[in-house]
Amino acid sequence: MARQEIESLREAMKKHWIALSVIPTADPHGSEYPGEHFKARKYLSGFTGSAGTLAVSADWAGLWTDGRYFLQAERQLAGSGITLYKMGEEGVPSLEEELARRLPERGILAYDGTIVSRKMGQSLRQIAEKKDGRIRLIDLPEEVWADRPARGKEPVFSLELCYAGESRMQKLSRVREQMKKENAEMHVVTTLDDIAWLTNLRGSDIICNPVFLSYLVLSMEEAWLFVQDGVLSGTVLEELSEDHIHVCSYDNFFREFASVCRFKTVLADSSRVNEQTWSALKGARHIVDKPNPSTTMKAVKNPVEAENMRKAHVKDGVAVTKFLYWLKKQIGRQPITEGGAAAYLEQCRAEGEHYFGPSFSTIAAYGSNGAQVHYGMEGEGAPLLPEGFLLVDSGGQYLEGTTDITRTVALGPLTAKQRRDFTAVLKGMLALGDVKFLRGIRGANLDYVAREPLWSIGLDYLHGTGHGVGYFLNVHEGPNGFRWKLPPEGTETAVLAAGMVTSDEPGFYLEGEYGIRTENLLLCREAEKNRYGQFLEFEHLTMAPIDLDAVDLEWMDERDKKRLNGYHQKVRETLSPYFEGEELRWLEEATRAV
Amino acid sequence: MARQEIESLREAMKKHWIALSVIPTADPHGSEYPGEHFKARKYLSGFTGSAGTLAVSADWAGLWTDGRYFLQAERQLAGSGITLYKMGEEGVPSLEEELARRLPERGILAYDGTIVSRKMGQSLRQIAEKKDGRIRLIDLPEEVWADRPARGKEPVFSLELCYAGESRMQKLSRVREQMKKENAEMHVVTTLDDIAWLTNLRGSDIICNPVFLSYLVLSMEEAWLFVQDGVLSGTVLEELSEDHIHVCSYDNFFREFASVCRFKTVLADSSRVNEQTWSALKGARHIVDKPNPSTTMKAVKNPVEAENMRKAHVKDGVAVTKFLYWLKKQIGRQPITEGGAAAYLEQCRAEGEHYFGPSFSTIAAYGSNGAQVHYGMEGEGAPLLPEGFLLVDSGGQYLEGTTDITRTVALGPLTAKQRRDFTAVLKGMLALGDVKFLRGIRGANLDYVAREPLWSIGLDYLHGTGHGVGYFLNVHEGPNGFRWKLPPEGTETAVLAAGMVTSDEPGFYLEGEYGIRTENLLLCREAEKNRYGQFLEFEHLTMAPIDLDAVDLEWMDERDKKRLNGYHQKVRETLSPYFEGEELRWLEEATRAV
Repeated sequence: MARQEIESLREAMKKHWIALSVIPTADPHGSEYPGEHFKARKYLSGFTGSAGTLAVSADWAGLWTDGRYFLQAERQLAGSGITLYKMGEEGVPSLEEELARRLPERGILAYDGTIVSRKMGQSLRQIAEKKDGRIRLIDLPEEVWADRPARGKEPVFSLELCYAGESRMQKLSRVREQMKKENAEMHVVTTLDDIAWLTNLRGSDIICNPVFLSYLVLSMEEAWLFVQDGVLSGTVLEELSEDHIHVCSYDNFFREFASVCRFKTVLADSSRVNEQTWSALKGARHIVDKPNPSTTMKAVKNPVEAENMRKAHVKDGVAVTKFLYWLKKQIGRQPITEGGAAAYLEQCRAEGEHYFGPSFSTIAAYGSNGAQVHYGMEGEGAPLLPEGFLLVDSGGQYLEGTTDITRTVALGPLTAKQRRDFTAVLKGMLALGDVKFLRGIRGANLDYVAREPLWSIGLDYLHGTGHGVGYFLNVHEGPNGFRWKLPPEGTETAVLAAGMVTSDEPGFYLEGEYGIRTENLLLCREAEKNRYGQFLEFEHLTMAPIDLDAVDLEWMDERDKKRLNGYHQKVRETLSPYFEGEELRWLEEATRAV
Repeated sequence: MARQEIESLREAMKKHWIALSVIPTADPHGSEYPGEHFKARKYLSGFTGSAGTLAVSADWAGLWTDGRYFLQAERQLAGSGITLYKMGEEGVPSLEEELARRLPERGILAYDGTIVSRKMGQSLRQIAEKKDGRIRLIDLPEEVWADRPARGKEPVFSLELCYAGESRMQKLSRVREQMKKENAEMHVVTTLDDIAWLTNLRGSDIICNPVFLSYLVLSMEEAWLFVQDGVLSGTVLEELSEDHIHVCSYDNFFREFASVCRFKTVLADSSRVNEQTWSALKGARHIVDKPNPSTTMKAVKNPVEAENMRKAHVKDGVAVTKFLYWLKKQIGRQPITEGGAAAYLEQCRAEGEHYFGPSFSTIAAYGSNGAQVHYGMEGEGAPLLPEGFLLVDSGGQYLEGTTDITRTVALGPLTAKQRRDFTAVLKGMLALGDVKFLRGIRGANLDYVAREPLWSIGLDYLHGTGHGVGYFLNVHEGPNGFRWKLPPEGTETAVLAAGMVTSDEPGFYLEGEYGIRTENLLLCREAEKNRYGQFLEFEHLTMAPIDLDAVDLEWMDERDKKRLNGYHQKVRETLSPYFEGEELRWLEEATRAV
């Protein structure tokens, strides 16, 4: 007996003569955290993980998810009648293979074109074509999901020039220069971080990401911003009108976009836009399929943004330091859970000026929970004991920028192996922060530097070393990053440039035992320029002590110690003015030279 | 008044109604060192550099060469009537741009299709098409070069299994497996190192490369080896016949290849074959345009080859050590020139068993000459003084493998800066030799390791860090290498594999003052395999002291010293049995722990 929700979907499918329907986990903008309104896959299947695709026919239902969620999905799908397809496991067919097998001849394959990417839409179309079948773009869940949450629709506000550092007109004109180079008359932007950055507007329609549901269309002189009705104040409307940006209704986007692009050459990124947007381009004369110019532009922070990010990191560092002090003093004295620790940290951050909330869900993972890289706490989480490691990965959104920091804290005695592993991770983080390199270098050229101490003792971590970070925007933004894999596996392969902010977060995870990660954000900046070219280097933005109780000096050479002491000295000098009394003494002790 | 050779060429062009002719520097096999027979560009233009392309019309002649040769070409072209085009300089048109400009409407553009690469041929055809013109494949120099040297035509000999480690039948069957995977019925190999490796044959038609002029065509059961008449002995002919390899005449290749490939699916590498070979594929049913399978296969040395290469490097190390001892003792006592030093080194190598000659022209560059990365000595070269650096880059061909080593020697007092730079280069070389990494890593991921000590003080070297090395074959063989640039600029981007041999040769060059390079060959080998995957590491094949007189210990930390001492200890232990008396004492002193 299948879930009621699936049965309802099947009835709707029957009504529309639909043989197979596909429900991915996405919103129309490819957002990392789709809002509740877009969680039809979760509603229909009962599986709550952040990644997964559901497919349903009259007599079968399947769910595809990745290794992070195998255990959780098995548990949550038990008795649902939905088959779990473990992606990447040997012998498990891909979604496309299974759909191709199950779609009957001349059958109708249905999906919501607004939440299916152009790329996925392409392969779904191919599947239908091979069966002489048809594609139907339809939001089926809408018909069966009675209490579907409304879309996020929060007020949108303007980011002042003292925070943005560049006016929206300047930004738009830089994009238009790129359009000109590509001979494009029009350009469509569907990714919310790009739109927020380009328009110097922020919202809160997406959890942790200060963005707003919207589409943006540019011509060489005009611009059309499609937003939900009523989210813009009179002041913002006036500003936009001054900048020749027409405000249109979000729900009219596809129709109006199709009409405005007719017979035009349009710059659009097929890897970012949804299937329905791409379909709306049918009437265009020509599509220039290139990355959004704004993606690389916003990755390079301007001097105002860079200076603000330094300030945001001081506030954030004060909060994290207060939290660390509290944790070190209270552990063993009062009962603390993972959830309680996360809440206290949030409380410390909330005291900071211009704080808007976390930049992602805090990970507070104690002991063996730390070994799960994407640990999601249930309830209050595990109680903390005065031994072993607590891994805390968290970040904040400030008007002055976005932060992302991981500290792994010794709550009491550690084993020699734990200290060795902590030290190896730390050495890698510090070494990557200390590189100097010529312009032209990509993250793939440098990733080894962070892994070297672990690889030299036969250990590794199964994630990238770092990702780009937005300015009071998304905590994960390309195109910069540190990964050793080259395309197609690795995608963050941008040439590093002064102004880019990238996380530096090696880790080590021993299943069933403990997890370690140490993460600072690095700002790329110019070093000397000479006959060899422009040299670049990194500046640590993150300002918070690294737990010396977990360091094994035996595993550090003079260079490692110099790097650690240099970093701690800067932390101490930067944060001291914000502390006094016992806290100040603790900060001084926590950042002492070793 | 133009050179007589150019005027003769113009007469021949006139006879054939040719408007423009192009004469590149190449042989039919894309060899690094084309034989004298193929040096028509040098004969016609008088410019003796190793790289350059000549183009001639009735009233104009131009020569394109790169930065290494600007000065030399200016000197040698003076008064020739040939315009020098400095490649890469701003405002200098490319060969293709200039040809497109100068080819008259419906004009005939001529070149020798056997020495023009498929890629260059393509762009030349496009130029002709745009002018409604025609291509004429013709070896014009043959008509005007009276005393043209004959092609190299030396005896070909068989490499015994104790050297090759794998029979030619096994090698061919591995290639045929690849052909099967690609659904190819036929495969053509035109690169001489691939053919020599696949057939376990060696020759000496190309200077420093033990290869022979040939083409190889494979079907799933048969093979056709096209060689010059008379180069194979009866024994070799018998061996080949047993292995179902038909021997055909080199001069009949294009005709017979075209006929044997008719209506067949053929695996061919468009980036390696010449234009005429590609044209011969016109009658094929389908071309699978992929790299030759043998290129990656031969890059991975089998255990017999690897063990032999260790032996070759002991012999080579003994020779280099004798040379270093002599140089250190004799400098200031007897007059020595760069040429004299190179000759003495060759004499030391010649004493080694199974020595076949140098693997490339020795570079012995004193003082400021060392700053020219591709220094080519004239006559006896500069006299050596008892001060500053002598850079010696040399290698040998042995039945047991190919060597390539660079040592930079202090001939007397050095400045503090010279010692610092020498130490930075040395640290980079040793650090790259000491990496451990997971399978999947490419040279581009590791190149930084060798550059780090230089980049950290704002210096660099304008060449790759390393290249693949063949087994008793070419000293420069892809697809492995160490370069930080990704494609299309960087091409040696193979995933590193156990068995690959790659040079590790950072350097530093200060124009007009001095040059430093320290080069060892590294053999990639397996380290531990665990849950993270297969780890790999390097073993230094090269065994020769590094000049401690040039090392500044102030610039080395404990890890650097440990690496240096570890390497020197291995050199001492390996080479000591081959020395006695004063030489042995010198070796011990030269490899002492610091």
